[in-house]
Amino acid sequence: MIHPIPSGTRDVLPDELRELRAITDGIRGVFDSFGYGEVATPALEYESVLTRGDTAAADPAYRLFDEHGNVLVLRPDMTIPIARVVATRYSTSEIPLRFSYVAHAYRAIKQHRLQPREILQAGIELVGAPGPTGTAEAITVLCAALDAAGLASYRVGLGDASLFPRALAAAGVHDTGPILKELAARDMVGLERELRAVDAVGLLDIARARGGVEIVPEGEPLREVFELLAPDVAERVIFDLGLVRTLGYYTGPVFEVYDAAFGSPLGGGGRYDDLLGRFGRSLPAAGWALDVERVHAAVLGEGR
Amino acid sequence: MIHPIPSGTRDVLPDELRELRAITDGIRGVFDSFGYGEVATPALEYESVLTRGDTAAADPAYRLFDEHGNVLVLRPDMTIPIARVVATRYSTSEIPLRFSYVAHAYRAIKQHRLQPREILQAGIELVGAPGPTGTAEAITVLCAALDAAGLASYRVGLGDASLFPRALAAAGVHDTGPILKELAARDMVGLERELRAVDAVGLLDIARARGGVEIVPEGEPLREVFELLAPDVAERVIFDLGLVRTLGYYTGPVFEVYDAAFGSPLGGGGRYDDLLGRFGRSLPAAGWALDVERVHAAVLGEGR
Repeated sequence: MIHPIPSGTRDVLPDELRELRAITDGIRGVFDSFGYGEVATPALEYESVLTRGDTAAADPAYRLFDEHGNVLVLRPDMTIPIARVVATRYSTSEIPLRFSYVAHAYRAIKQHRLQPREILQAGIELVGAPGPTGTAEAITVLCAALDAAGLASYRVGLGDASLFPRALAAAGVHDTGPILKELAARDMVGLERELRAVDAVGLLDIARARGGVEIVPEGEPLREVFELLAPDVAERVIFDLGLVRTLGYYTGPVFEVYDAAFGSPLGGGGRYDDLLGRFGRSLPAAGWALDVERVHAAVLGEGR
Repeated sequence: MIHPIPSGTRDVLPDELRELRAITDGIRGVFDSFGYGEVATPALEYESVLTRGDTAAADPAYRLFDEHGNVLVLRPDMTIPIARVVATRYSTSEIPLRFSYVAHAYRAIKQHRLQPREILQAGIELVGAPGPTGTAEAITVLCAALDAAGLASYRVGLGDASLFPRALAAAGVHDTGPILKELAARDMVGLERELRAVDAVGLLDIARARGGVEIVPEGEPLREVFELLAPDVAERVIFDLGLVRTLGYYTGPVFEVYDAAFGSPLGGGGRYDDLLGRFGRSLPAAGWALDVERVHAAVLGEGR
């Protein structure tokens, strides 16, 4: 007899779950030590609430209706639910507020890609601490979490979601949509085509720039973030000026975690200074999420 | 601004989540010490798979469609998913198999009852250990979990899902549906009416019988289960011959946890010797689930 489960989901058996649990326990210890209180939110949210935070949230993995005909979706991440919690349950609380979570998120996937739809995430949201200080704290907690997970050779790619749009504006380019779409997809061929079409192919150098702090233009906030990092954190950072995250709410520095033992980013995050205001309490914020199963795969890979 | 969340769901903030976590950590320690390996399964299952285990699973809290038009539901419990895992991933493994979980389940609720739809459960499934030995082990682990959670004054109500149906058969009653429905609802007025209609009102005494082992008829398997319990577990047991669980797959002894500090059962379980066979590996089994938030409320209530 065959008993299928939905594509993009899987069963986790005891040996593997024990190892995943060791990773999340270690990360939770880091959250505790930095004062990030764990929260839990419903797996289902009203779509109208999620799209208030990010219109891209309107493309969820699963959509259903409640008994009143309202559209519910399985949360695609925890950032928007926590923004909702801050606005509704912490509307007058002193800042900064520090929250953490270990929870499943649900993503739409392209068919036949064998990507997971149900993702176990561990992450934080730091609300009310402006950049660069807040950004530097978020990156510091991120590295502590990766250390606690047992990863040795990870790197944190650091960019700024506002850098390329500002360069486009300075070059007089107004129709930025197609260009940013290619940049987000990391499609350098497509990006060159789009930049050529608006006579701004010189900006390709920014999108390709990866390296030490020397590649960051003077006066960029990224430099100030970097100066706030302790040496053991700073040595993990690789600047990546073409880095933008696909989620629409990032406003400033963004980052992604790489490990040579795993072919895709293990997680990432960044600043989202406009998101909380959409829920009624305007506060700067930064956060990140790690894909726990990818972190686990990288830990195993490093050990080989 | 109002940002609603679906009825029957809620946000759990750090102070409460820390207390819930202490309870689940304690219970997980018990699972480990008794050799119950933790498993995780997808939140969504094909409805056709769940209804193979229990036709009552066809009344889920939420139903949706995948891209091929198949019906998916948020799992109403973990017992059927684990039966599926046993049949597919442990089809030739040595028995007994011991599994545990700490996971959310999703229930249909009657409107306006303010009941939760998203329930955090901690539980076990013991597969391949026949009753009464297996049942006694399940109850032993249950009491150890409740002890670890910090509950002092709980009781375990113990009945047998097959006892009343057997008594009806012995009395020559064949149309048992309406009678068992009233019994499951614990509606003694309705039960009396239905029993009177079939001239079997004497069976009302069985449904009402609660007390020590002396109320259990000689030869009932419940007596043998009781004799296998250590004294500190046995002293928690109250026999309740009218106890049946509403889930349709129970075949023998069933139990529920009560605490004076909380008005509803904190959880329960029982034997389900026919369920695994429906998935292709016929094995006797027993299991239970605790509602972690109810256990938490009872712990707080006992402390007052």
